[in-house]
Amino acid sequence: MRISLRGQPVPEDTDPRIIDGKAIANALLADLAREVAALIETGQPVPGLAVVLVGDDPASQVYVRSKARQTVAVGMRSFEHRLPATVTEDALLTVIDRLNADPAVDGILVQLPLPRPLDAARILDRIDPAKDVDGFHVVNAGRLSAGLDAPVPCTPLGCLLLLRQAVGALSGLHAVIVGRSNIVGKPLAQVLLRENCTVTIAHSRTRDLAALCRQADILVAAVGQAGLIRGDWVKPGATVIDVGINRIPTADGRTRLVGDVAFDEALAVADRITPVPGGVGPMTIACLLRNTLAAAAARRGAAHGL
Amino acid sequence: MRISLRGQPVPEDTDPRIIDGKAIANALLADLAREVAALIETGQPVPGLAVVLVGDDPASQVYVRSKARQTVAVGMRSFEHRLPATVTEDALLTVIDRLNADPAVDGILVQLPLPRPLDAARILDRIDPAKDVDGFHVVNAGRLSAGLDAPVPCTPLGCLLLLRQAVGALSGLHAVIVGRSNIVGKPLAQVLLRENCTVTIAHSRTRDLAALCRQADILVAAVGQAGLIRGDWVKPGATVIDVGINRIPTADGRTRLVGDVAFDEALAVADRITPVPGGVGPMTIACLLRNTLAAAAARRGAAHGL
Ligand SMILES: NC(=O)c1ccc[n+]([C@@H]2O[C@H](COP(=O)([O-])OP(=O)(O)OC[C@H]3O[C@@H](n4cnc5c(N)ncnc54)[C@H](OP(=O)(O)O)[C@@H]3O)[C@@H](O)[C@H]2O)c1
Ligand SMILES: NC(=O)c1ccc[n+]([C@@H]2O[C@H](COP(=O)([O-])OP(=O)(O)OC[C@H]3O[C@@H](n4cnc5c(N)ncnc54)[C@H](OP(=O)(O)O)[C@@H]3O)[C@@H](O)[C@H]2O)c1
Repeated sequence: MRISLRGQPVPEDTDPRIIDGKAIANALLADLAREVAALIETGQPVPGLAVVLVGDDPASQVYVRSKARQTVAVGMRSFEHRLPATVTEDALLTVIDRLNADPAVDGILVQLPLPRPLDAARILDRIDPAKDVDGFHVVNAGRLSAGLDAPVPCTPLGCLLLLRQAVGALSGLHAVIVGRSNIVGKPLAQVLLRENCTVTIAHSRTRDLAALCRQADILVAAVGQAGLIRGDWVKPGATVIDVGINRIPTADGRTRLVGDVAFDEALAVADRITPVPGGVGPMTIACLLRNTLAAAAARRGAAHGL
Repeated sequence: MRISLRGQPVPEDTDPRIIDGKAIANALLADLAREVAALIETGQPVPGLAVVLVGDDPASQVYVRSKARQTVAVGMRSFEHRLPATVTEDALLTVIDRLNADPAVDGILVQLPLPRPLDAARILDRIDPAKDVDGFHVVNAGRLSAGLDAPVPCTPLGCLLLLRQAVGALSGLHAVIVGRSNIVGKPLAQVLLRENCTVTIAHSRTRDLAALCRQADILVAAVGQAGLIRGDWVKPGATVIDVGINRIPTADGRTRLVGDVAFDEALAVADRITPVPGGVGPMTIACLLRNTLAAAAARRGAAHGL
């Protein structure tokens, strides 16, 4: 039986090699709910997360709704700001400024992608770094790379927590990260370096990616190409973290979600592997709420047990 | 015959496999002198570099004197601010604030290490990021890691320019960087990733470092341990960049400088290698002046040919 981040048992998977991201995320959410309750009990105001949604991208709407629901479920306040796709950059910056100044708001998240021609970099950098629960602000990216205390972007943080749970001590392990985006690959490299992994970052220009992947004790795929990583790219005994989310057509004319890893092939070789869906995905929102609670505690000068 | 960054011939080395950092740095300094003259000719004020030296560490004094001499040699103004080791943090921050506000100052460098108990991180972060010619400000570290325009710290920039000169196109090459400091290893990883290298970062917890190094097309040693990297750690045909500077005793009771690489052994295997001294070292100050000119040009909204 596995044990959650805070000590409660996690339900057994059918296959113990499959890392149950949903169960681990639920355990984290339960921990967060307890932490939030404890914070409020000390007389502190309820932590609050503000989500800014611009335009009407259907996928973004689903994400934002799901975030709001889970925010409330752990006992925090959720503020939603919906703006039309035609909003001007200045008007959007004014909204950010108001949220920066609002004492009820501990975390601010601007749902990406932003409609054109809005300049995402400029808007994200307007967020008070102390309220930057996505960890995308350049100040926080710089602090992370300098080894200073900083919020870790949610998906890499989710990968880290899964790895700690599944593998334990990471020091000295060779992590190969395929993908170098600012939201997944690069911050994950910083995080795993901080954990004393040897870290390799690969990408579309990498030569002989298969041979490189075969060296990994920890293999992370964050590419966006269904089944790119084959079973014989995986070292026997490795731990595989599949960040990819790809929608592919099925025989019956519908679609389903798959990762960047050929799951069945890899499962035959790896010691542990995250499924898609149900692996990294559920951790991402839980980590957003974890970053929000950490920001709230820091702003209140309060201790928290994360 | 090799050609300098800007097209003039570089004197032949005795051994063409030895990358002549001194010659490449001198060519860069000559380019900079021309650029500075061209900038001034357009009626712009002379670029200026301010160096702040706290305390009386003899090595730091040598560096600062050498920086000042080369600053003047390329036609820029050099401002030196010497403060006693007993200076308070507030007094030092006031000096930084004045330099930030001084229009004659384009670049500010605080010579490290700072005497205790001064908090280097706090002081470096007080520098206006636009004048941060060392590239150590968290905003600039964040911008670099996000792939945005940012000053590259001088030693990693020197490594990059040597590699471009010696190797040419770097895309797809596997770079193994041994060392993960904030001033060398980590920013160099960002820079080589930007050049589309596959990048591995190794450090003291790395397992089987020899086997890892043997995979490198580009092997960078930034450790500070004389001769750590042996000849049989080098892949035939690799390019070796030795950042290390170690002072070791010689048979006659004196000392000499050596790198982190067992030079003669590696020279027998590598296609190209930087010597110590005369490799990366001379590039570092040249790159400081390059960053200063770039900052001056940016502050003046002027074009420059770097
Ligand atoms: N589970 C979650 O919560 C979550 C969160 C975020 C993202 N995702 C998913 O994770 C995946 C990656 O997202 P992202 O935002 O990081 O993507 P991205 O910005 O598109 O980056 C993709 C990376 O993969 C590299 N790449 C592309 N093709 C490759 C190939 N054939 N071989 C090796 N590398 C290749 C690219 O290299 P270049 O840099 O050379 O182009 C790039 O670095 C997507 O499927 C996304 O949906 C999931
Ligand atoms: N040429 C120049 O202009 C210039 C400029 C700057 C520095 N340098 C020289 O470059 C060297 C490194 O400087 P730095 O400031 O980056 O040093 P640093 O901050 O001391 O970092 C040294 C790095 O080497 C790693 N390391 C130590 N022992 C190791 C071993 N046995 N195997 C593998 N890795 C090991 C350390 O790992 P951990 O992180 O695990 O401790 C650390 O990441 C020094 O010799 C310095 O004098 C030269």
